[in-house]
Amino acid sequence: MKNTLYLPEIREMLAQGAADELAEFCQALHPARTAHFMECLSPDEAWAVLQYADAPTRVEIFTYLDDDLQVAIAETQDRKQIAELIAELAHDDRVDLLNEADPKVAAELLQLVPAVERRDILRLQMYPEGTAGAMMTTDFAKLGESLSVQEALAELGRQAEELETIYYLYMVAEHDHLRGLVSARALVSAMGKPATTLGDLMESDLVAVGPYDDQEVVAQKVARFDLLAIPVVDEQRRMLGIITHDDVLDVMLEEATEDAHLISAVAPLEDSYLKTNLFTLIWKRSIWLVILFGAALLTTTALEHYQDRIKSWQWLVAFIPLIISCGGNCGSQSATLIITALSGGDITLSDWKQIMRREGIMGLMLGGVLGICGIFAAMVFIREPQTVRTVLVLPLTLLLIVVCATLTGSVLPLIFKRLGLDPAMMSNPFVAGIMDILGIVIYLNVAILLLT
Amino acid sequence: MKNTLYLPEIREMLAQGAADELAEFCQALHPARTAHFMECLSPDEAWAVLQYADAPTRVEIFTYLDDDLQVAIAETQDRKQIAELIAELAHDDRVDLLNEADPKVAAELLQLVPAVERRDILRLQMYPEGTAGAMMTTDFAKLGESLSVQEALAELGRQAEELETIYYLYMVAEHDHLRGLVSARALVSAMGKPATTLGDLMESDLVAVGPYDDQEVVAQKVARFDLLAIPVVDEQRRMLGIITHDDVLDVMLEEATEDAHLISAVAPLEDSYLKTNLFTLIWKRSIWLVILFGAALLTTTALEHYQDRIKSWQWLVAFIPLIISCGGNCGSQSATLIITALSGGDITLSDWKQIMRREGIMGLMLGGVLGICGIFAAMVFIREPQTVRTVLVLPLTLLLIVVCATLTGSVLPLIFKRLGLDPAMMSNPFVAGIMDILGIVIYLNVAILLLT
Repeated sequence: MKNTLYLPEIREMLAQGAADELAEFCQALHPARTAHFMECLSPDEAWAVLQYADAPTRVEIFTYLDDDLQVAIAETQDRKQIAELIAELAHDDRVDLLNEADPKVAAELLQLVPAVERRDILRLQMYPEGTAGAMMTTDFAKLGESLSVQEALAELGRQAEELETIYYLYMVAEHDHLRGLVSARALVSAMGKPATTLGDLMESDLVAVGPYDDQEVVAQKVARFDLLAIPVVDEQRRMLGIITHDDVLDVMLEEATEDAHLISAVAPLEDSYLKTNLFTLIWKRSIWLVILFGAALLTTTALEHYQDRIKSWQWLVAFIPLIISCGGNCGSQSATLIITALSGGDITLSDWKQIMRREGIMGLMLGGVLGICGIFAAMVFIREPQTVRTVLVLPLTLLLIVVCATLTGSVLPLIFKRLGLDPAMMSNPFVAGIMDILGIVIYLNVAILLLT
Repeated sequence: MKNTLYLPEIREMLAQGAADELAEFCQALHPARTAHFMECLSPDEAWAVLQYADAPTRVEIFTYLDDDLQVAIAETQDRKQIAELIAELAHDDRVDLLNEADPKVAAELLQLVPAVERRDILRLQMYPEGTAGAMMTTDFAKLGESLSVQEALAELGRQAEELETIYYLYMVAEHDHLRGLVSARALVSAMGKPATTLGDLMESDLVAVGPYDDQEVVAQKVARFDLLAIPVVDEQRRMLGIITHDDVLDVMLEEATEDAHLISAVAPLEDSYLKTNLFTLIWKRSIWLVILFGAALLTTTALEHYQDRIKSWQWLVAFIPLIISCGGNCGSQSATLIITALSGGDITLSDWKQIMRREGIMGLMLGGVLGICGIFAAMVFIREPQTVRTVLVLPLTLLLIVVCATLTGSVLPLIFKRLGLDPAMMSNPFVAGIMDILGIVIYLNVAILLLT
């Protein structure tokens, strides 16, 4: 959904060098909206437009541009000007930008950034993607406990432009040891008592995360405690940075899509659906499809193995798709329930006994329900002379398969989690693939047991 | 993951009536943490503990309690005291509470709440669940444009305790017509110039939502524009309320889980996995399983229809599970890609032509890849005398099925969206079920075409 509405106007203004109108375009709207209208411009055009914005607005609009366009601009435009822009960007955003840009360009840009900023960038780049460290920013408000409310407000006023958030002020002792927090709300409420110090207002029971904590843990804590920002501290509780609510929301939106894709066996996309190159998408889908094809060949092997039996009881063939789809559906349900509960923090690995018990009971009950359906299906669809034994093959198979499916579907994500892998990788097609093979083996063995 | 750590201590303190210690327990920690430790108490015990907190803290702790426990307390404790509590709760939270409580109790409580608050509750209750109106709160900061920075700060200080957020101040004209917004950040930055008025600082290009907009639209806007809160306005741009970032995050977490459940054909749960009653869970899973079972019976019918053909080409049987699983996997991938892109706002219905073209091309390419795999599989697994025609049945079937699957998987969520239904309901098992039947029909018709 690229926005091309104002594209001709912007191009015309650029061609005419209409400075006043371009400045008006840059300043009048919310920077996010301006950025939205600029989406279809080339990097050269976009950078030319940004020259008409004043410095703080330029930084803001740039921040809201698409990641791809940001990178393209950074890679193609004047290095020195880009380095100046980078120095002004939010500390977490500029690290993302440099990580995504061509490494050669990124290295050149880094050399042009002032030394203090460069050190900050290098420090933040240490943390692997998906961790709290990679999400955090280092521009937060750090104040002393002895400051009065009046002094703190004045200090905030001076720093407000530069800080990522002014809504939480952090109090640190020596060596950046985190002591407490005063919210801007508490500060404003205390304006009537100007002699009060930050130390008096400070909350000291703080929720924090470690720099190597997973981004899901960050999101869960921020959501649970309704926070605007969460501090990141090391083992000695030294303050390393903060993560703000807007970055948490972005991560949540990304992660939800990623999990859903993994659950359906698509390797996660880095871009949105329409923007992803068609061949990238084909590649990300075909690798899984080929792997799953290989797994499905096992069902072929199994059916070949039993082919003489099948010839003698030909009516068994008609139920093969029914049986494997029931197993697959039950297994997918269990897998998804467990994967989403794990990522939402509702269950942990230590709950495994309770989970197995619940899934076992559910397997028996659901298997019972489908077994009853199976009795009717067998009575309607088996054209051969029906005996108790022939009618029982289908329901008994369904019961066994459903129990296997609930247990397999719930235990596999737990095992993946235990191994430190993403449980969403234990995707529905995988569980379904396993259930296909198990299903056929169970079906034919039940048939052999009952019919010979 | 209920927290039972401090349960014995809390019960002992209650039994001894240790007022000081209980007051200390209520006040010392972050209210969310206090609430977490109270999770396993009975409604009577929890309410007894809350009596030791001062009024504002009581409200805060109560807000962080589990929804179930909140409802249980509201239903069982002294009506008058509960009504007093409700009058103090955040405007959106108390509506949720009353909506979930026993309607009889809710009506009684509503009568005890002061008239102003009651009207506010009734107004918010009008909006259906899942809309912006149902998420919004009416306690936001409304100030006049003529106020100076100094006056505005003083006014904020007076109201800070009651407001849901003090970080955005809204300027409204007559009839609550929304004129603009001043952030607390801009206010604090301007403290050096005390004569500046709010009108001077005001941003007037505001992002807003309508009361009947879907909660996903709200989340997308808040995420895109990095907002702390978003105003809700009617068609005349009269301000009805605001939605704050924390409620958006909660909704996002809920919605992500709900979509994933729907995609795997589990009717959405109202509670977390371990808290949901086993029989509720069995019911929510079995309805879909039985419906899908019914759909799968169509495959049985199809196979019975072709049974004479199958008898003459017995080797076809071995590939049935392989073929239907390939169709199901491809269809699930397409469906999930489209469902997540729709809910993330990456695509809209108007993109349908582009989507169909992309999925068609992908279907041909993926079908080609699986077709090549199919040639090898046919050459390895067909034990009968192989001819070009027998070898070609499997790859040709796979190509056709994959093209059908990508088109079916992508078009169904779009149709659901067009009909005003949740596209995630066009879940993977449904797409897979449709592909099972289509797969068998295509397979046997290709076989008939090539082998007779």
